[in-house]
Amino acid sequence: MPRVVRIEIGARTYEVIIGAGLVRTLGGMVSEVTPARRAAALVFDTALPTGLVEEAAGSLAGAGYEVTRIGAVGDEGHKSLGALEAILAAMEASRLERGDPVVALGGGVVGDVAGFAAAVYRRGTVLVQCPTTLLAMVDASVGGKTGVNLRLGDGTTVKNAVGAFHQPRRVAIDVMALGSLPERAFRCGLAECVKHGMLGGDLGDAGLLEHLESGVERVLAREAGALVELIARNVAVKAAAIGGDEREEAAVGGRALLNLGHTFGHAMEPMAGLSPDGDARRAPLQHGEAVGLGLVAACATAEAMGRIGPGLGERVRALLTRCGLPTRVRGLPGDEVLLAAMAHDKKARGGRLRLVLPGGAGRAEVVTDPPREAVVRGLGAIRSA
Amino acid sequence: MPRVVRIEIGARTYEVIIGAGLVRTLGGMVSEVTPARRAAALVFDTALPTGLVEEAAGSLAGAGYEVTRIGAVGDEGHKSLGALEAILAAMEASRLERGDPVVALGGGVVGDVAGFAAAVYRRGTVLVQCPTTLLAMVDASVGGKTGVNLRLGDGTTVKNAVGAFHQPRRVAIDVMALGSLPERAFRCGLAECVKHGMLGGDLGDAGLLEHLESGVERVLAREAGALVELIARNVAVKAAAIGGDEREEAAVGGRALLNLGHTFGHAMEPMAGLSPDGDARRAPLQHGEAVGLGLVAACATAEAMGRIGPGLGERVRALLTRCGLPTRVRGLPGDEVLLAAMAHDKKARGGRLRLVLPGGAGRAEVVTDPPREAVVRGLGAIRSA
Repeated sequence: MPRVVRIEIGARTYEVIIGAGLVRTLGGMVSEVTPARRAAALVFDTALPTGLVEEAAGSLAGAGYEVTRIGAVGDEGHKSLGALEAILAAMEASRLERGDPVVALGGGVVGDVAGFAAAVYRRGTVLVQCPTTLLAMVDASVGGKTGVNLRLGDGTTVKNAVGAFHQPRRVAIDVMALGSLPERAFRCGLAECVKHGMLGGDLGDAGLLEHLESGVERVLAREAGALVELIARNVAVKAAAIGGDEREEAAVGGRALLNLGHTFGHAMEPMAGLSPDGDARRAPLQHGEAVGLGLVAACATAEAMGRIGPGLGERVRALLTRCGLPTRVRGLPGDEVLLAAMAHDKKARGGRLRLVLPGGAGRAEVVTDPPREAVVRGLGAIRSA
Repeated sequence: MPRVVRIEIGARTYEVIIGAGLVRTLGGMVSEVTPARRAAALVFDTALPTGLVEEAAGSLAGAGYEVTRIGAVGDEGHKSLGALEAILAAMEASRLERGDPVVALGGGVVGDVAGFAAAVYRRGTVLVQCPTTLLAMVDASVGGKTGVNLRLGDGTTVKNAVGAFHQPRRVAIDVMALGSLPERAFRCGLAECVKHGMLGGDLGDAGLLEHLESGVERVLAREAGALVELIARNVAVKAAAIGGDEREEAAVGGRALLNLGHTFGHAMEPMAGLSPDGDARRAPLQHGEAVGLGLVAACATAEAMGRIGPGLGERVRALLTRCGLPTRVRGLPGDEVLLAAMAHDKKARGGRLRLVLPGGAGRAEVVTDPPREAVVRGLGAIRSA
């Protein structure tokens, strides 16, 4: 039986449905939330197996939708206003009307771009997320954040600088879609699971970190039952962070907690020379790898501030290692460069550094202007010679 | 004393302030709704007199904002995702943060593009509209519709296909800004005033049409007092349509009424050969001219359906003529072409034609699938040999 997690945000409340083989019933899940059954746009990641895309399209057609397939490339370089324009033009050509659904089938990039397209097409149409990567399942597909990167005149790119809060009407998570996911991408999703485990005490699931520690081998083997359980619990933790803070406006708690590890991670992610194992062929760091490193750095920073003892940092490092994720990285630039990059992270307010730091197992809070020495200790914990 | 009209939409309720000389106090009006007084982006129409732009920038600087001036071209060709990207990049370069205000100083195009930029920058920042054309004052700047046109692969453009509902935090209307507005653009704004007059009975101001009839000469002479009064009453009518239907979702009544004359108008507006007086040098029709023609056609359609007697159509035609607006147009294509263009208007649902038609002076309603013969009679009323 599929698991159901409700995202409770008033009039926009919706269900996240998690199960094995759900793509076969996608049409029914979409029609339950868009009764007209007229046209549907299926925006799919071009890296997905054709069979999966056709299964989704067939299910939508079987439910009575005239389906337009729109291919999208799922890398950061295609997370752009140009890619958005191409998707919107294809939606327009298919005569999609306001109220007809956009179904996003793919990883985080495709979900973000297709979700943004749904947010702005005719000033907003219905969105159904059908994530196909672990990272998108436990994070990006839930919560309504959509958007693209912004290219500046000097050729640099600002990640997620443009977008909208546009909640999906439903999220359909089929763990069978993970069958074709490359190992490195799969492991990246586990970094967000470790993060949620570190927040579980504040967000309704104090046992989540321990659950992951006890069953990570079954998860790495991609056992369907273990995946459904893990994803459902992760989505529930994220749901608790979103409830009451739909648009990330709370000064403390709320969605801001989900940035644990991310300010460190965002500083490292654009640095082209960094690689998870020091081998340049695997540069740059993927998002999940940078977040995992950020979690270790956040623990070490909190330890240096006396907020936590050494146990949590060791536990997080050991779990990330079992997940096949790096906990140190070679070639990090100097502290000044990293601190400056962190201060310019878009979560900053009024130019002041704001870090989410653990306050014990399962607990975290937003700390404004943490001591420089503590942050440097945090960076030291992930430096590799 | 400035007039104040409140747009009542729950947590997003805001004030529209109408007066003479308000640009000199813009900084204060913005800081009342964004207390941080850090950075501000002033997106201005490059066709505006430099003095007006500097007055606005100076007032913002005087209130404590670090002002970044961003020029935008106010024609339909620049109402594009490309123009949006340029504005967003300039906002990014100025280190604008979420919560810092975007002030849109210009006509409808600049307000729509800058408003959309505010809607999607960092998933939404504060917007203050400061319209400088009569059309934008009585219509586009109020109600939260923002967006751009979409260019398709075949070179055609779909108007307002992409956008967001993003309510301004405040609207500051300075009638002195109308001093530099070209006569043709000024008259176009009056078409929306006539439309509001035709809706006033349903929207709280049954005397609006008569008020315009009695004082149109003072308005055409751009007397400040007459303009403040007219604009305040028009904004109040629009406010009544928006209240309870912020996102244009009501099936009957609500914002949909504001489309009176627009389905006819939208069909004619893209036809490059049409001109208000038959002189090709003045082609194509401007939005207000097309709407004015649409109002005449809507009256004639309603008359053919027996919904109204001949008096209203004659009254509307006489008033538009006094406003210097066309009520007939040469070179209209055949009925089939026009009916097809109307059926493809983006307000259509499920491919069915929906027209807003008058039901008497000051009253209107949405009519789905009106008789073809009646619509053809409507088109006949605006055809010129």
